[in-house]
Amino acid sequence: MGGILAVVSHPDDETIGCGGTLALHEKESNVLCLTCNPRNRRNELERACMTLGLGKTVVFDEDSVIPKGALIKQVADIIVKECPRVVVTHLPFDYHTDHRATYDVVKEAIEWAAHTTAYPNPCLVERLLLMEVNTLIPSPHILVDVSETMERKKAALNSYSSQLSKFPWRYYQRFNDEKAALRGAQANCIYAEAFIEEPLAKNGPFYESKATKNLLR
Amino acid sequence: MGGILAVVSHPDDETIGCGGTLALHEKESNVLCLTCNPRNRRNELERACMTLGLGKTVVFDEDSVIPKGALIKQVADIIVKECPRVVVTHLPFDYHTDHRATYDVVKEAIEWAAHTTAYPNPCLVERLLLMEVNTLIPSPHILVDVSETMERKKAALNSYSSQLSKFPWRYYQRFNDEKAALRGAQANCIYAEAFIEEPLAKNGPFYESKATKNLLR
Amino acid sequence: MGGILAVVSHPDDETIGCGGTLALHEKESNVLCLTCNPRNRRNELERACMTLGLGKTVVFDEDSVIPKGALIKQVADIIVKECPRVVVTHLPFDYHTDHRATYDVVKEAIEWAAHTTAYPNPCLVERLLLMEVNTLIPSPHILVDVSETMERKKAALNSYSSQLSKFPWRYYQRFNDEKAALRGAQANCIYAEAFIEEPLAKNGPFYESKATKNLLR
Amino acid sequence: MGGILAVVSHPDDETIGCGGTLALHEKESNVLCLTCNPRNRRNELERACMTLGLGKTVVFDEDSVIPKGALIKQVADIIVKECPRVVVTHLPFDYHTDHRATYDVVKEAIEWAAHTTAYPNPCLVERLLLMEVNTLIPSPHILVDVSETMERKKAALNSYSSQLSKFPWRYYQRFNDEKAALRGAQANCIYAEAFIEEPLAKNGPFYESKATKNLLR
Amino acid sequence: MGGILAVVSHPDDETIGCGGTLALHEKESNVLCLTCNPRNRRNELERACMTLGLGKTVVFDEDSVIPKGALIKQVADIIVKECPRVVVTHLPFDYHTDHRATYDVVKEAIEWAAHTTAYPNPCLVERLLLMEVNTLIPSPHILVDVSETMERKKAALNSYSSQLSKFPWRYYQRFNDEKAALRGAQANCIYAEAFIEEPLAKNGPFYESKATKNLLR
Amino acid sequence: MGGILAVVSHPDDETIGCGGTLALHEKESNVLCLTCNPRNRRNELERACMTLGLGKTVVFDEDSVIPKGALIKQVADIIVKECPRVVVTHLPFDYHTDHRATYDVVKEAIEWAAHTTAYPNPCLVERLLLMEVNTLIPSPHILVDVSETMERKKAALNSYSSQLSKFPWRYYQRFNDEKAALRGAQANCIYAEAFIEEPLAKNGPFYESKATKNLLR
Repeated sequence: MGGILAVVSHPDDETIGCGGTLALHEKESNVLCLTCNPRNRRNELERACMTLGLGKTVVFDEDSVIPKGALIKQVADIIVKECPRVVVTHLPFDYHTDHRATYDVVKEAIEWAAHTTAYPNPCLVERLLLMEVNTLIPSPHILVDVSETMERKKAALNSYSSQLSKFPWRYYQRFNDEKAALRGAQANCIYAEAFIEEPLAKNGPFYESKATKNLLR
Repeated sequence: MGGILAVVSHPDDETIGCGGTLALHEKESNVLCLTCNPRNRRNELERACMTLGLGKTVVFDEDSVIPKGALIKQVADIIVKECPRVVVTHLPFDYHTDHRATYDVVKEAIEWAAHTTAYPNPCLVERLLLMEVNTLIPSPHILVDVSETMERKKAALNSYSSQLSKFPWRYYQRFNDEKAALRGAQANCIYAEAFIEEPLAKNGPFYESKATKNLLR
Repeated sequence: MGGILAVVSHPDDETIGCGGTLALHEKESNVLCLTCNPRNRRNELERACMTLGLGKTVVFDEDSVIPKGALIKQVADIIVKECPRVVVTHLPFDYHTDHRATYDVVKEAIEWAAHTTAYPNPCLVERLLLMEVNTLIPSPHILVDVSETMERKKAALNSYSSQLSKFPWRYYQRFNDEKAALRGAQANCIYAEAFIEEPLAKNGPFYESKATKNLLR
Repeated sequence: MGGILAVVSHPDDETIGCGGTLALHEKESNVLCLTCNPRNRRNELERACMTLGLGKTVVFDEDSVIPKGALIKQVADIIVKECPRVVVTHLPFDYHTDHRATYDVVKEAIEWAAHTTAYPNPCLVERLLLMEVNTLIPSPHILVDVSETMERKKAALNSYSSQLSKFPWRYYQRFNDEKAALRGAQANCIYAEAFIEEPLAKNGPFYESKATKNLLR
Repeated sequence: MGGILAVVSHPDDETIGCGGTLALHEKESNVLCLTCNPRNRRNELERACMTLGLGKTVVFDEDSVIPKGALIKQVADIIVKECPRVVVTHLPFDYHTDHRATYDVVKEAIEWAAHTTAYPNPCLVERLLLMEVNTLIPSPHILVDVSETMERKKAALNSYSSQLSKFPWRYYQRFNDEKAALRGAQANCIYAEAFIEEPLAKNGPFYESKATKNLLR
Repeated sequence: MGGILAVVSHPDDETIGCGGTLALHEKESNVLCLTCNPRNRRNELERACMTLGLGKTVVFDEDSVIPKGALIKQVADIIVKECPRVVVTHLPFDYHTDHRATYDVVKEAIEWAAHTTAYPNPCLVERLLLMEVNTLIPSPHILVDVSETMERKKAALNSYSSQLSKFPWRYYQRFNDEKAALRGAQANCIYAEAFIEEPLAKNGPFYESKATKNLLR
């Protein structure tokens, strides 16, 4: 309970998008990956998550991500079970259609996971952060200093030989490094990861926390 | 330093939009009002703020709100001086053009107030909340329980005789009560005020807090 | 023929969203409900509609609302058969995904129902009004005075014991009352219901009414 | 009182955009033109309006159209004085910046003209229609059959020799004809003019008509 | 290889939307039509394409256009096989839901067709142009002079007797002519067709052309 | 005549946003800078442009950038005089309000510069590219390989001692390097600059090139 849950479309998204941040909170971070094609990417994902020091990794076997009711329900079930404080997922303006669909699924799942009418022990996620894989964030809200876990982020990426081998000119390794270095320049540290903060409802009739008593505490 | 700053277009917006919330944090709340026409509304505003228990009230003398550089600078100066943790202002989809312009001014002012290159002691506002005056929020993020300060919110509204007298059928009094009662129904309390949470950048090269070290603390 | 057709996602949407308005035009109002899960809600819906004084109620048995061709066709068939002057449905910015999808379905269905190439007796709906269930309308175009049918709207809501029992603190009853009271304050009457007016094409090659001859008659 | 008021940016917009429609309602149509540069276009405008059979033509002397308070007030004053049932103006997605600004001015002016707190005899405009000058409407709501006034629309255009002479290949004459012929094809008549219908609020606390009693009458 | 590929929703869209342009480049133009209901429209389509002088015409047998993975893959396969320099398709704001979905499918297919990781011989389309069928383009980027092929565009339309017979008042023939005449007036020629230019990525890690060396050559 | 014109808000934007690209086309590139506060930045700008190898640099003396008619006219005059083939400017979603306003000014100026009715020798700009200063482009259309001019881009940045000294931790130098390195990783070269391509109208009644004769030549 608590911690960070990264909900991603494909194996390697978690490492490229937020691997340094997950490793920084390694005892408290989990990954849910919605697709896994071809199947041998599953081993790669597990090796990457182990390298990042993460606990459990859940993999669904969707062919591609479609924001349909059954998938939303499955994701909400995971959210209720893990009850993360922070969820990380893809950008709604990502160039990849699976990433955009994952954003839609996660938004809906977070809503339903919080409903007292849907779950006996609902879970109100505190923060939703959106990460950058190949599509960059124009103006981030949050820059997480990952200087101390960058080596593990790099090592985790190396698990994905099936992907890396498609780019013999080492695209993903360079991109992974340079993106973290650019965000590090903005964050005045060596390496960083960038996120958009997406506001979530905190109060309302369907949540356990129906009202706020004090804005300053 | 700290507390809540409400930046509003006209006298009475602070009472109708967030008067109960301001009264709830009375020792820590201030009001900045950008216009004041005609001038006798200034007395009404001061009486209202005193009823709400607020400290200082600053009034600018714009004719109407235009998001121009000089006004943005003046608002940023106030933010830097008071350094509120929470700023409350109008909705960007408000029906009133002054309210929409005030939102634009406040967004810019919050940005510049945080820049180390603009102020020797910059101020990074933590939260920006958007309130409802005549235009309602479709799905609020935050509902503040104002049951215990509702009487003062009602009393503060009564200061505005120049406005109330335009509606002999007591529109504003009823609207003020019923809106708080509807939000109270959603918040499972007697009276509430509704807000949208607008995410603010927390890190970056121009702010003092250039990076986040831990997302869970 | 003529009258009002409310096309809603779930049983109780018609009562909370526009029950007072339907009761006001009771002889001329019908309801089409696209989903009905679990099935016992059907009895509740029928009881509610009877309380509102409505005639026929049509229920489709979708699991959730998806804007697919077959459903659009079914809704268009109903529109052609009933040929309502006014259609009422959900908001495109409603927090509930089924409600947003219902809006999409209804927009498409109204278009096709008017085509002379699709139906031998096409129906051009005059007005499309969008109602508020849990998501509020920021600035309504229309406020219908439902003071004289409010008692029936309240009674109709009481049919939905399967829903109401989920909120032992009487959320829906209070919300139903306070929303109508707030809109009544804006409309200078006791109780009102709020709507957005969505413009519809009146002329064109696919409609029977291809041109307007006079704008002032 | 009643009738149609066309509020346009420049002399000739009224003829190209809605001249046939104005001529069709000639006894009940007026024109308000916000700019007039150079000044000799004023004579052209007056000749055009006379050809269309219109009554009074009001001309403001803005250099370009800026949606500032004073101009909005002037337009609202005209609306209150004439109290048209229908206002016609430019498209918010027009390629010309003056046209887009005129749309903004007119929307605000219609709002304020209806306020009981702003005018002792406020005017609630019934319909706002948006016309096409050089920018076309993708899917019109309304097609007005102007077959019988097309000759006058053509003749009115010929008043604008200062403009027409800039296009020795007769651009405006051909465009004026072909646009009406294309809209006529869609409207199954010889010539037509196309409009978007923009919904207007009909009820609310600031209007005289605070509520609707019946949607079907 | 090279040339123009028009990807359309229904038989006749290619003729009405861009038939004159296709005929102008007859040796280098192909058509891909995603649906064909009822089946006899296939003969009409083939006759129309022959009249326009086009080569191969590919027809898929979707019932309606849904932007799902399998269809996107099929379209990408065609793009890779033909490798057109220019793709023409529907508008994202078209009134017809199949047309909007076709736009989505084509955008995705163009992206994947260019990926070196998806195809051994990927194809980077140079230009994407969007055409007008029943929905007009407000401000076109490109006007193609089709004066010399207009007779063939008209003749091609006449192949569609199953469609034309639905409009005994000759809607489509008149619309087809007048639209080209209006666009011709804007283009200072007899007949023209209008297009929006949609920018496409030219460089990036997934394309063969990863960088631009010179912007002026 | 021909070449590239960069229109920027402040001295240093041209170097950070597109300095490498300008240096790559040094004989054919010019800079127009709309503001220059304080005045000593003018010397810095001239030194930077000399380092990049550029010819003439024009500086306007606006306090801040406001999209008003007089400024648009001044920019259009420069475009007509220089008649660049490519214009580079800021992003419409840039975090800096001057940058967004500059985008608006440039879009209008490009339109008017092309009008035969506005200028005896109008200029139709071929391409409009949007660059990244502090706000990043999510998915660029164009990546220009600036590996061979990167040293000059770095040297040009060093002219701006008044700006650089505000960031003793060398923010701008690092950001400038790492951004080019990240874009280089995507472009499979050492250093690159990223751009969005914004489509421009090529044909129409107000331009000299009223129609396109052939899409493939």
